Amino acid sequence: MQRAIGVIDSGVGGLTVAYELMRQLPKEKLIYIGDTKRCPYGPRSEQEVRAFTWEMVSFLLEKNIKLLVIACNTATAFTLKELQDKLDIPVLGVIQPGARAAIKWTKNNQVGVIGTEGTIRSNAYKDALESINPAITVDSLACPMFVPMVEQGIMFGEKAESVVKEALKPLKNNKIMDTLILGCTHYPLIKNTIQKEMGANITIISSSEETARETSALLSMHHLLANGNKKPTHEFYTTGELKIFSKISETIFKKSNFKRVRIEKAMI
Amino acid sequence: MQRAIGVIDSGVGGLTVAYELMRQLPKEKLIYIGDTKRCPYGPRSEQEVRAFTWEMVSFLLEKNIKLLVIACNTATAFTLKELQDKLDIPVLGVIQPGARAAIKWTKNNQVGVIGTEGTIRSNAYKDALESINPAITVDSLACPMFVPMVEQGIMFGEKAESVVKEALKPLKNNKIMDTLILGCTHYPLIKNTIQKEMGANITIISSSEETARETSALLSMHHLLANGNKKPTHEFYTTGELKIFSKISETIFKKSNFKRVRIEKAMI
Repeated sequence: MQRAIGVIDSGVGGLTVAYELMRQLPKEKLIYIGDTKRCPYGPRSEQEVRAFTWEMVSFLLEKNIKLLVIACNTATAFTLKELQDKLDIPVLGVIQPGARAAIKWTKNNQVGVIGTEGTIRSNAYKDALESINPAITVDSLACPMFVPMVEQGIMFGEKAESVVKEALKPLKNNKIMDTLILGCTHYPLIKNTIQKEMGANITIISSSEETARETSALLSMHHLLANGNKKPTHEFYTTGELKIFSKISETIFKKSNFKRVRIEKAMI
Repeated sequence: MQRAIGVIDSGVGGLTVAYELMRQLPKEKLIYIGDTKRCPYGPRSEQEVRAFTWEMVSFLLEKNIKLLVIACNTATAFTLKELQDKLDIPVLGVIQPGARAAIKWTKNNQVGVIGTEGTIRSNAYKDALESINPAITVDSLACPMFVPMVEQGIMFGEKAESVVKEALKPLKNNKIMDTLILGCTHYPLIKNTIQKEMGANITIISSSEETARETSALLSMHHLLANGNKKPTHEFYTTGELKIFSKISETIFKKSNFKRVRIEKAMI
């Protein structure tokens, strides 16, 4: 029996991480759980986020996962270290891979970060960047309109462009920034619109892509990569409405991948 | 006493990996050894490469390194698995990080790899790419002229452009390839010339940049990142001519970094 990569998220944002895991690691089986019933985690207390996260982790550990991806910025900020210390499987969050990619890309150490209010207020990206390279200057901006917009299915076109343009104005004033981290797992869905607004000279880092790439490295280093060439069937669970979760999943995954996804309701 | 990252190479190519480690991890101390006396490893037997590699590894283990980077493609191909199994510190090679980055970047699974004759013959990149994603098509090309050219200090200008143009002709016929891996640690020094020849639509992957970035991930996951803000002084060793090694190091490192490099001859 092939052991799976476990993915947890407060809801549907982590589906962009799941999409990248399927694309970059097509032989790996995923088991995903999204806590849509109690989403968003951003405004919740640390105690609540830690309790909900542990419930999802226990659910996945029973399914014998071989590696855990915390595909939620808030949960990463509050529980990464604890989970790394307590679990005997490798654990990866979404914050550090994006930070490391930005450090690789920036030529002048001027990095921007956009995310939810909670993520920006936590300074998690700023801390991750500066702890590795103290010479980096971080320009952070909360974009509270982006998640609700994406969840309504507005990702490109006139309306999306105007929301993105308005939100990014403060960053456009920064004339030396050369790299921008999408510090929220919803944002890769509007990456093209953001790139168009920021201009081709800014390197945009998707934390979802980078997290999938580091998952690949981690699996390899722990000799946990899947063998054989059988295409896996993925298990996705939601704590909330099955219909809405399925619809959003179908939008995010390409058709061929969605065929190999089984979605169920999780009772946790 | 701060523990260092150990870097081994058959000679000077690995200096591009060292340069990237200094740039992406400015707080980390490096101890590098280049076996310039017995370079290149490409034409040597597996037995010889393994014996030489172990000599360098023993030299670094005595200096209490916390992580080992094998910054040489040939040594990676022959010894990575053995070193990962036998050492109780994390070990990273130069092949897998480049392969994982290419998998992240390619949009159509058409990937090119250039390297020395030995590396291309070993199929190490092809194997690494296909073992993760069997749908990837790999177009490999040996460029035996590049290393001698770079070692003569010819990296841009008319002469470099004409050598690069001639060598890359077979790859230019591949009209669907969208990503090209520089599968030799010398090649990042002529990245701009290669990019110019291949055109802006091809994503060029530097295995040196990617190896440094994954070193950062590995240090973090093992809780081995350096603390404090003191700038380290790096130790570089060569088994060959001190003068030549120093001159090449000075060319590769920027002035400010070179000031913090101490170069000595190693007796192994």
